[in-house]
Amino acid sequence: MKLIRHGLRGAEKPGLIDASGTLRDLSGVVPDIAGTVLGRDSMRRLAALDPAALPALPTDTRLGACVGAVGNVVCIGLNYADHAAEAGLKAPGQPIVFNKHSGAISGPADEVWLAPGSTKLDWEVELGVVIGEPAFRISEAEALDVVAGYCLVNDVSERAYQIEYEGQWTKGKSYPTHCPIGPWLVTPDELGDPQAVDLWLDVNGQRRQTGSTRTMIFGVARIVSYLSQFMALQPGDVIPTGTPPGVGMGQKPPVFLQVGDVITLGGAGLGQQRQTVVPTPGR
Amino acid sequence: MKLIRHGLRGAEKPGLIDASGTLRDLSGVVPDIAGTVLGRDSMRRLAALDPAALPALPTDTRLGACVGAVGNVVCIGLNYADHAAEAGLKAPGQPIVFNKHSGAISGPADEVWLAPGSTKLDWEVELGVVIGEPAFRISEAEALDVVAGYCLVNDVSERAYQIEYEGQWTKGKSYPTHCPIGPWLVTPDELGDPQAVDLWLDVNGQRRQTGSTRTMIFGVARIVSYLSQFMALQPGDVIPTGTPPGVGMGQKPPVFLQVGDVITLGGAGLGQQRQTVVPTPGR
Repeated sequence: MKLIRHGLRGAEKPGLIDASGTLRDLSGVVPDIAGTVLGRDSMRRLAALDPAALPALPTDTRLGACVGAVGNVVCIGLNYADHAAEAGLKAPGQPIVFNKHSGAISGPADEVWLAPGSTKLDWEVELGVVIGEPAFRISEAEALDVVAGYCLVNDVSERAYQIEYEGQWTKGKSYPTHCPIGPWLVTPDELGDPQAVDLWLDVNGQRRQTGSTRTMIFGVARIVSYLSQFMALQPGDVIPTGTPPGVGMGQKPPVFLQVGDVITLGGAGLGQQRQTVVPTPGR
Repeated sequence: MKLIRHGLRGAEKPGLIDASGTLRDLSGVVPDIAGTVLGRDSMRRLAALDPAALPALPTDTRLGACVGAVGNVVCIGLNYADHAAEAGLKAPGQPIVFNKHSGAISGPADEVWLAPGSTKLDWEVELGVVIGEPAFRISEAEALDVVAGYCLVNDVSERAYQIEYEGQWTKGKSYPTHCPIGPWLVTPDELGDPQAVDLWLDVNGQRRQTGSTRTMIFGVARIVSYLSQFMALQPGDVIPTGTPPGVGMGQKPPVFLQVGDVITLGGAGLGQQRQTVVPTPGR
């Protein structure tokens, strides 16, 4: 099953994509793809629906982030050995954890805003894990059972803010539009092995990142179990699991995003995203 | 005005404390002390109510965190020069920012859980700022206008997880019950100058922290404006603004919390909290 959220930004409604690729509306069934709707029983009920009985949506429908009311965006850093090397850092002995502010979340084809004065805007294609059941102090054996599904995430980052502005990474990870999520939330049964997902990212049509979740240092089960020792994961928490090599900071010389650049990215079973970089609108 | 949330954990209802100290129920007026209820117009409507016309609550009513549905807990670190010194770190040139997972939030008199194997559980009394209006790229002159109110926060921290477990601080800041908030949200008109709030914290009746927000390195207006350059602050975001000297890590020799310890803390105009440290229940 592939779940989506469609409509105007901030007023997205729930939906799904059927086997033929038609977008269908779930507004009559659930209030949102969020919170307890992501739970095991609820997801089973959604999977039992006949998609053909749901209203079809126009093909040009805007897609929002595929999860609503996200409580926490808990990210894993340096989770691919090759990416750690390109960042000039050693591979971590245990997962590196940081947060994105939830106000960063945007849809898969929404524009990405360049902050005024920003000079080091960077990309990161990632496998996102969406939590469906409360998870606190669970084992690795239990971990995949609390996962509602997976999605594509672009962990857009401003490297100066992240690294040069003192303190913790969250400053460079939290700008509005710097967390495109989607196009869809794919359920675990349909994705298959989360450690066999190919990922790629292009900038202006040039391939920049190529990788596979096979080369993660810490796999999804380990990450979810590990995080749950430090925090009570909640339905609707999203966990971007780290990025493979090829970020802008790692190019020789480094390459950063400029206004007008187009980022396209995808993952096997996760769909594709496309963003254009624009100046921050308004003030 | 002092707003509260009362009732069972996870099912708290809105309320207020009237001038005589009587707890009163706001369930018939607003759904929660959360989100848009924290906005300027809504707060004005609440302030115009006659408290005597609201149902009184029993004096032994449990208080929960005074803000519900908190989107993000965005913390400021090392914001008192003396505390930076006791942590062995130099005073920062700009605000240090980190996050607590929202699952850490608890009520002002709820028990604080010691994690299995935890040896460096520590306390931090702080002034918390509650955001009431969306705030993105605002000036310092505009900053106090987006503040719904203030509250007491104990930024409970596990120093080994925070500092010794690789990476970012969030691991040591996010355990359930490690973010008591309340007892009440006091509105700016009633608190007065947020840079003149005395803070204190005792452990087992022994004074450990004494301070005043007068000695903050970065004041509330600067913090809110600064954060809004990096993230779009949302109604219901809570900003603990840093702790004065006297944390356990800073004692000579260091002192950390044990099961059975009682933490009491308070701030002028903010009320008091009282927590007992217990083992993590259940599994």
